[in-house]
Amino acid sequence: MSATITGKWLLLCGGIGGAKLALGLDRLLPPGALTVLVNTGDDFTHLGLRISPDLDTVMYTLADVVDPETGWGRRDETWQFMEALDRLGGEVWFRLGDRDLATHVERTRRLAAGETPSAVAADFCARLGVASRLLPMSDAAVATRLRTATGWLDFQDYFVRLRAAPVVSAVDYAGAGQAAPNPALFALLADPELSAIVIAPSNPWLSIAPILALPGLRDALRGAGIPVIAISPLIGGAAVKGPTAKLMTELGLEVNSAGIARFYRGLADVLVIDHADSADAPAVAALDIRPAVTATLMRTLEDRLALARAVCELAACRGRVAS
Amino acid sequence: MSATITGKWLLLCGGIGGAKLALGLDRLLPPGALTVLVNTGDDFTHLGLRISPDLDTVMYTLADVVDPETGWGRRDETWQFMEALDRLGGEVWFRLGDRDLATHVERTRRLAAGETPSAVAADFCARLGVASRLLPMSDAAVATRLRTATGWLDFQDYFVRLRAAPVVSAVDYAGAGQAAPNPALFALLADPELSAIVIAPSNPWLSIAPILALPGLRDALRGAGIPVIAISPLIGGAAVKGPTAKLMTELGLEVNSAGIARFYRGLADVLVIDHADSADAPAVAALDIRPAVTATLMRTLEDRLALARAVCELAACRGRVAS
Repeated sequence: MSATITGKWLLLCGGIGGAKLALGLDRLLPPGALTVLVNTGDDFTHLGLRISPDLDTVMYTLADVVDPETGWGRRDETWQFMEALDRLGGEVWFRLGDRDLATHVERTRRLAAGETPSAVAADFCARLGVASRLLPMSDAAVATRLRTATGWLDFQDYFVRLRAAPVVSAVDYAGAGQAAPNPALFALLADPELSAIVIAPSNPWLSIAPILALPGLRDALRGAGIPVIAISPLIGGAAVKGPTAKLMTELGLEVNSAGIARFYRGLADVLVIDHADSADAPAVAALDIRPAVTATLMRTLEDRLALARAVCELAACRGRVAS
Repeated sequence: MSATITGKWLLLCGGIGGAKLALGLDRLLPPGALTVLVNTGDDFTHLGLRISPDLDTVMYTLADVVDPETGWGRRDETWQFMEALDRLGGEVWFRLGDRDLATHVERTRRLAAGETPSAVAADFCARLGVASRLLPMSDAAVATRLRTATGWLDFQDYFVRLRAAPVVSAVDYAGAGQAAPNPALFALLADPELSAIVIAPSNPWLSIAPILALPGLRDALRGAGIPVIAISPLIGGAAVKGPTAKLMTELGLEVNSAGIARFYRGLADVLVIDHADSADAPAVAALDIRPAVTATLMRTLEDRLALARAVCELAACRGRVAS
């Protein structure tokens, strides 16, 4: 167990799974030491409102207002709006709670008034008392799309409306090639106080790939000259939540730690895998990524803190954990 | 007491006061016999949402989902959205309940998709089970504005944010001169089954004048050749609710039935005044409008039905009620 952890830390993440580790790091590190670069490839416009699901999930989680049952949306949420919308013939497949709705209405209003997504996120976080810094991966729009037997689907159509049921043959990040990464990211990567880059156990293809698809981002992460530590989203060869394993199968990938390591090859120094997958360690090492075995399931706040601590210790003692 | 009332009926009205008489007529007449032409001069865009306060008040009232305490908004309303918006630094001076919000979000979405305000109102009313036909006065935007010591104020700034406190020196209906009246109105005015035109006890300058300011509207009403019956919003020389009397004073008008009759001169055949104002009858008659004295305060549903019945009898027996 280390003493005080110092320096600045960068976490790349998506929604629910990523938010769990973000919470562990946020609570473990001194206030303001953590910057979270959040996937916005899932963002979409719905009912005329601009919705940033991953950003809001991380923000609600760190602000301690997230619904603990679902991991997304707000605690003690009510659904009067949805019920009334249903009666008026509106679209109700994407559930927007009454409290949550304020985030989308106010974000949409501010974006229309000329504020950037980054500025809106920063102000919302300040008002909700979030100490860590949340950065949308880009202020430009990127839209993750999935190719299925019936054609390309928008992310939320696939993920929420169709419950990730369609078989996916390809994933695309529309607009990513022209979307400038959040400028605050480059400043942070040049900061000598930055200790490490952590990649959350989010879905690599749906949550991390949109970030890595931004121009210059992968090189900038590598060029920072600090440890890059990724956490596998698999436990015992299966996803804790969501379609990671299903998607890997459909994309013709090995559904194990090696399949994840192959995705992070050339970027991550370390891949954290669960005890349940320790047999995968040699295969990970064979891909020039150092495997680190620990408990990665995050059920409680203590689990989140423990994983955050393990990751920070890995960064501090890079190379200490044997494969 | 008359037997069955036949024919079609047109009501011109604004918000809360107008909605009360609309309800009386809606419940008194056979389903579908009533058309309500509603003021949209109070409409505005707030938080990026297109809000039609008078239309919604009438719709909620006829759908029996209105808040009986306030006369506007929805019954059993909750305010989670507002509370969350406040925390995010949003504007909360205009109160939008969680259920009510669905109306504004869905209307805004449909307008952006190219539907007309009339089409949206018709569909909402059908879904909420409103038998009467609600017509926005125009599908074009008209904005009531008030000149005060500090300059021109938008209607909701004056009415809600500043609680009608500023002294008003003039009222203007921006856009009214170019706003085509709802085309369904002309078809109705040409319908031989139309029995009468009723003008609700709404504020003449704030709720009825925007309607009458539309090109050709006043002539079309007169040209229909049927009784035009207006109800005074004053009782005992004071407004039941709202700034009618205050506004009349500020505009230099007589605050009595004659002041109201002067507004409707040349348009109304009959002005219905309350028993409390019966002494005003000769002054009304002197303006070539036949005064009709009855109880105009609408506290209960029975009051609403009784006034509706009185108005219908006046139309059926035009000239029967002595001045």
